[in-house]
Amino acid sequence: MTKKNIVILGSSGSIGEAALEVTRRHKDRLRVVGLSVRCNTKALARQVEEFRPPTVVVGCDADVRSVTQKVRRWGGRVLRGREGLCRLAAEKDIDSVLIAIVGSEAIFPLRAALGAKKTVALANKESVVMGGELLMREARRCGARIVPIDSEQSAIFQCLEGHRVGDVERVYLTASGGALYGLTKRMLRCVPLKRVLAHPRWKMGPKITVDSATLMNKGLEVIEAQHLFGLPLEKIGVVIHPQALIHSMVGFHDGTLIAQMGATDMKLPIQYALSYPERWEGDGSRLDPARWGALTFERPDTRRFPCLDLAYEAARRGGAVPAAMNAANEVAVGVYLAGRLRFGDIPRVIAKVMAGNWPRTVSKIEEIFEADAHARESAGRWAEILRKRRRFR
Amino acid sequence: MTKKNIVILGSSGSIGEAALEVTRRHKDRLRVVGLSVRCNTKALARQVEEFRPPTVVVGCDADVRSVTQKVRRWGGRVLRGREGLCRLAAEKDIDSVLIAIVGSEAIFPLRAALGAKKTVALANKESVVMGGELLMREARRCGARIVPIDSEQSAIFQCLEGHRVGDVERVYLTASGGALYGLTKRMLRCVPLKRVLAHPRWKMGPKITVDSATLMNKGLEVIEAQHLFGLPLEKIGVVIHPQALIHSMVGFHDGTLIAQMGATDMKLPIQYALSYPERWEGDGSRLDPARWGALTFERPDTRRFPCLDLAYEAARRGGAVPAAMNAANEVAVGVYLAGRLRFGDIPRVIAKVMAGNWPRTVSKIEEIFEADAHARESAGRWAEILRKRRRFR
Repeated sequence: MTKKNIVILGSSGSIGEAALEVTRRHKDRLRVVGLSVRCNTKALARQVEEFRPPTVVVGCDADVRSVTQKVRRWGGRVLRGREGLCRLAAEKDIDSVLIAIVGSEAIFPLRAALGAKKTVALANKESVVMGGELLMREARRCGARIVPIDSEQSAIFQCLEGHRVGDVERVYLTASGGALYGLTKRMLRCVPLKRVLAHPRWKMGPKITVDSATLMNKGLEVIEAQHLFGLPLEKIGVVIHPQALIHSMVGFHDGTLIAQMGATDMKLPIQYALSYPERWEGDGSRLDPARWGALTFERPDTRRFPCLDLAYEAARRGGAVPAAMNAANEVAVGVYLAGRLRFGDIPRVIAKVMAGNWPRTVSKIEEIFEADAHARESAGRWAEILRKRRRFR
Repeated sequence: MTKKNIVILGSSGSIGEAALEVTRRHKDRLRVVGLSVRCNTKALARQVEEFRPPTVVVGCDADVRSVTQKVRRWGGRVLRGREGLCRLAAEKDIDSVLIAIVGSEAIFPLRAALGAKKTVALANKESVVMGGELLMREARRCGARIVPIDSEQSAIFQCLEGHRVGDVERVYLTASGGALYGLTKRMLRCVPLKRVLAHPRWKMGPKITVDSATLMNKGLEVIEAQHLFGLPLEKIGVVIHPQALIHSMVGFHDGTLIAQMGATDMKLPIQYALSYPERWEGDGSRLDPARWGALTFERPDTRRFPCLDLAYEAARRGGAVPAAMNAANEVAVGVYLAGRLRFGDIPRVIAKVMAGNWPRTVSKIEEIFEADAHARESAGRWAEILRKRRRFR
């Protein structure tokens, strides 16, 4: 069996660690030839010891002495920062680049990997939200392929296998509803961080867990699905499904719905993205329908969770608006995680930023990053204004 | 657009009528070139007037004068009985043969259609249950294809599109549970026919409705799936799903489940079987997940509904046993529908017949029909014995 050479960018996060677990299980099929972390060099040192990749990339600010020492023992090298990520992602002899970096920074290695005709296993939402149109154009031009890792997008991808996108009538992204779905609008206003981070179904990083609680996560997925599958916005719907067993559904124009289900374990879509077009045996638990009890579904309440509507609005307006929205969300969530913003003010910050005058069309990736920078600045200002207004400690 | 030439065998039944409705909607894609009924010449006369097929087949005992008169007006012809069915099914210039005949008689035109390399849209279970191995061998030899119409098999077929059968770990056939699923064993013993025929989800003919209530329908589907998809018996499971929205699920060895859903409307799988490998737009209602309420699932209770276990036993024993079981079921249900057997005695008759000494291997279709005939005889005897024992009026 020829092994696939894979690179894992963002290897110290929850997705990165799960990807390494998949690699461990499929040693005979996968070889790790590159890893990256932004600052968690302690985790990297451990991973490097186990997988001995020839290249690692570390963020510019981190102390890399311990890692460098290890890597040099087998003739490997350490690259730094954005430039290092892009070099690694486009390296020859790499079959698959798994991008598990959080936030908009992922757009750079993603663009590099697509340009080098790699198969990209993509766990990062923001890159496609920001630069979807340009990136998908690049992917088509180079014949590169994105296999999504996000469980909802992976579900759509799998439901579409063997069927024609042209026959799709409606895609349903399912949302567990996050940690706060049962709360009233009043309770939501200043729900404590601890409560938000206790996601009932998925164990994820703090940024994504907050996005899941605001439903912005689902909003980002709507925009993402638009680009990944070339679907018009009006064909993409969201449905709350608290049991999170159905990861998404695709409805075709004859009335048929195809649904993908699986345990709430990220190793499943990660392995699928790495094994595609094959499907390898998994060690995880199996679903037993007789034990499901009841699967329930309801329409999302966008009055209590306005972020979803903001995302639809951004998608409709297009151009630089999704990038601005995404940047505003990143800043707002960051300020919230730092304890300097109320939960209910996250959508307020985003809405204020989106109300600005953003380019309706973009033709270069630089324009997107200009919008990103402006939106971050504006979001920071608005977060500060709201904080003062709330006399938040 | 070139039209597909289709033949509908058993056109006066509920599936046949629904198939004609699909044809009506897709006039530009489908042309009816043959119809058959066993005895309902009144319905046939109406259908013939509308679709003007060049060939019709009518059962040997029926009065065909009115139909013959009509058909001759446009130079068509009327064939009779089993021989006529087989001639029509193998006719040149036919693309698709839809077989909606009830009972084991369907095996003859099915064999003829496969031998003539037709695509068969198959709504008949018994033929595959009885002669599955031989028929599938014939299909492979001739390069013919069966696209199942039965909603559960159609669901499995659709879930497998784009995936490999070799990666399948377990198939779940869903069962609504039929009209009687809530009743106790005691109540089931002599439940009145009227109650049995009131199926909560599907409107079907009386034979299939009774099979649905005994779960024999599901048992037949287990054996059918074994043959249609080349699956080992231990990979086929049954799960009760009263809402009947999920028509079946396929679990793959990575832990992923793919499910197919649709309205409980036979036009959906009928149209898919006729449109395959395309998928045409449907006029039926669309599923809206937000209106589903709760989807529930439970393990089938084979103590109350022993027919399911009988079918697994028949599948395990193989050879002529499934044919004997199917024949015994047809006879028992017939006697039950005639009001001369208790509901609870249907599985008893089948079990008594299956206890006989049936060939463990079959190599010719004649052997299957020998077993079929013997089983019918034996079932008739056992039904009579049980009837007398119960002092049934």
